[in-house]
Amino acid sequence: MSLSEFDLIREYFSRPGQPPRADVIRGIGDDGAVLRVPADRELVLSLDTLVAGVHFPLDTPPAAVGYKALAVGLSDLAAMGAEPAWATLALTLPGIDRQWLKEFSQALLQLAGAYRVQLVGGDTTRGSLAISLQVHGFIPRGAACYRSGAQCGDLVCVTGTLGDAGLALRAGNRADCQDSDDYHQLLARLQRPQARVQEALAIRHLVHAMIDISDGLLADLGHILSMSGVGACLHVDCVPLSDPFVGMRDILGEPHWLNVALSAGDDYELCFTVSPDQLQTVQRLLKLAGCRCTCVGEITRGPGLQCRHEDGRTFHPAGTGYDHFAPLASTDL
Amino acid sequence: MSLSEFDLIREYFSRPGQPPRADVIRGIGDDGAVLRVPADRELVLSLDTLVAGVHFPLDTPPAAVGYKALAVGLSDLAAMGAEPAWATLALTLPGIDRQWLKEFSQALLQLAGAYRVQLVGGDTTRGSLAISLQVHGFIPRGAACYRSGAQCGDLVCVTGTLGDAGLALRAGNRADCQDSDDYHQLLARLQRPQARVQEALAIRHLVHAMIDISDGLLADLGHILSMSGVGACLHVDCVPLSDPFVGMRDILGEPHWLNVALSAGDDYELCFTVSPDQLQTVQRLLKLAGCRCTCVGEITRGPGLQCRHEDGRTFHPAGTGYDHFAPLASTDL
Repeated sequence: MSLSEFDLIREYFSRPGQPPRADVIRGIGDDGAVLRVPADRELVLSLDTLVAGVHFPLDTPPAAVGYKALAVGLSDLAAMGAEPAWATLALTLPGIDRQWLKEFSQALLQLAGAYRVQLVGGDTTRGSLAISLQVHGFIPRGAACYRSGAQCGDLVCVTGTLGDAGLALRAGNRADCQDSDDYHQLLARLQRPQARVQEALAIRHLVHAMIDISDGLLADLGHILSMSGVGACLHVDCVPLSDPFVGMRDILGEPHWLNVALSAGDDYELCFTVSPDQLQTVQRLLKLAGCRCTCVGEITRGPGLQCRHEDGRTFHPAGTGYDHFAPLASTDL
Repeated sequence: MSLSEFDLIREYFSRPGQPPRADVIRGIGDDGAVLRVPADRELVLSLDTLVAGVHFPLDTPPAAVGYKALAVGLSDLAAMGAEPAWATLALTLPGIDRQWLKEFSQALLQLAGAYRVQLVGGDTTRGSLAISLQVHGFIPRGAACYRSGAQCGDLVCVTGTLGDAGLALRAGNRADCQDSDDYHQLLARLQRPQARVQEALAIRHLVHAMIDISDGLLADLGHILSMSGVGACLHVDCVPLSDPFVGMRDILGEPHWLNVALSAGDDYELCFTVSPDQLQTVQRLLKLAGCRCTCVGEITRGPGLQCRHEDGRTFHPAGTGYDHFAPLASTDL
């Protein structure tokens, strides 16, 4: 049985069961979607691509791919302090695998429904498996949280725990790790990252600078520092670690596990800076949202990022994050 | 010399020479772009993917790829009657080829500048060459042109000429054709399609239904018919052909050249329906915009699309347009 592009979208992505948003005048099905942004709001956009074999292993369950494609976008909206509203999807497929499409679309639409996000348009094409997804959200005028707002004297905080996704990726290559409860908890962090949307909405009026940790704390905090024209001192022994991370980190050994926690990325926690007199309020608001908040350093006049142990020793990290082009750039140019 | 993802965006896509739009609060460089939609406008979005080897031949000049990636989006905005404003770009590259990136980005940004479109965000990733580009435009509230508005008795019109891009693609496979002026004019239509943006803005208040012809007149008019719940009679001898098309069509023979004009797609002209008493006004407005307008049929109570010659004979088209998945679907399922 053949399935045209139009049928594909209708069959897998229209989901008539969910009530449409009132701000969607026309969604999927025309040359473009027609949408209304509230008059007192600014629109926030973010577009991300996931390529099979680059951003996720080829054997990743389709539900995990669908979930993550949207979750990374929601995390970008969270980093800006924006409330999610709509998504568009460009799906490139090597062929039509109905079971794959069903599991991919169900996971994506289920996550969308949980955040009241409506899929309003997209494109399906033939080619190597890749997913580009754009998220759209709202923020009150002038309220966006930028990377560039960090101030000397601010405290550097992170939500949740770091390194879980990176450790899951490394443990996944070892046959002796894959039966443990710890591994499955870490794998859930890698495959189904939780975007800190509610947490960001709760604290956006209090933070000076914010970013989501997709490329690792060192790289992403580095973006805050360079765009704010400041430096930071990071207390590496304060970096929050989960119980499963602590349970499994010995497969890597020290200092390698610390490098994973600082540089591996893919955790989609928030890193933000806040003035010391607002720390308690921020921590209280995040606790109400069920989210751990840890102070891991402070902003300095800079420039540069210094990493220190509790006893004052300098820590020299092995890498500063993930750059999609670094391995190619060094060989091709 | 290595080139990180961040440098890549800054070097090739930031273009500080062009004045930024006042409605772009924050463009490239943060977790998301922050934008303002005028209070009396609706937002129109369209996302399209071009895959190398599927949507364009692998030897297509990078400037043509960059130009076309944006032009197809502008054409979607035109079909909705929307005024272009912003674009986001997800660029997937097998490696960093500086010359390719330079030519690709220059052509894209030059076309963007011509329409006052600002590139406000995007993502660069490693993988098979593919470009997903989302365009964003504005339309006065309630003024969008949909596929679903055609009314019984409307005339069916098209802008410009049809079949040029399709004939260029077919002539490109023949060594005996490639030196002629006709071929180069057709090739320009294939590689640098002109989105009918100004034309659409001039007539959007007068048309009942509108679509851009990306998949061929038969397929795209078919979308108008099915979404409007009507039929149409198409006078195939009225379909407007360019001089270079007429000059080269004999390489295909009749009726094959007529099938190309009706079904090949990639011309990015507009097809719209209008009540007979508005035809003269629409034709006058399009003439002022320097654009040919041809009446090719009329909307009937339907259903279905009938194709007729001037002498009343029925024409049976060989295909109804391009479906990216059709060849796969028939073999894989």
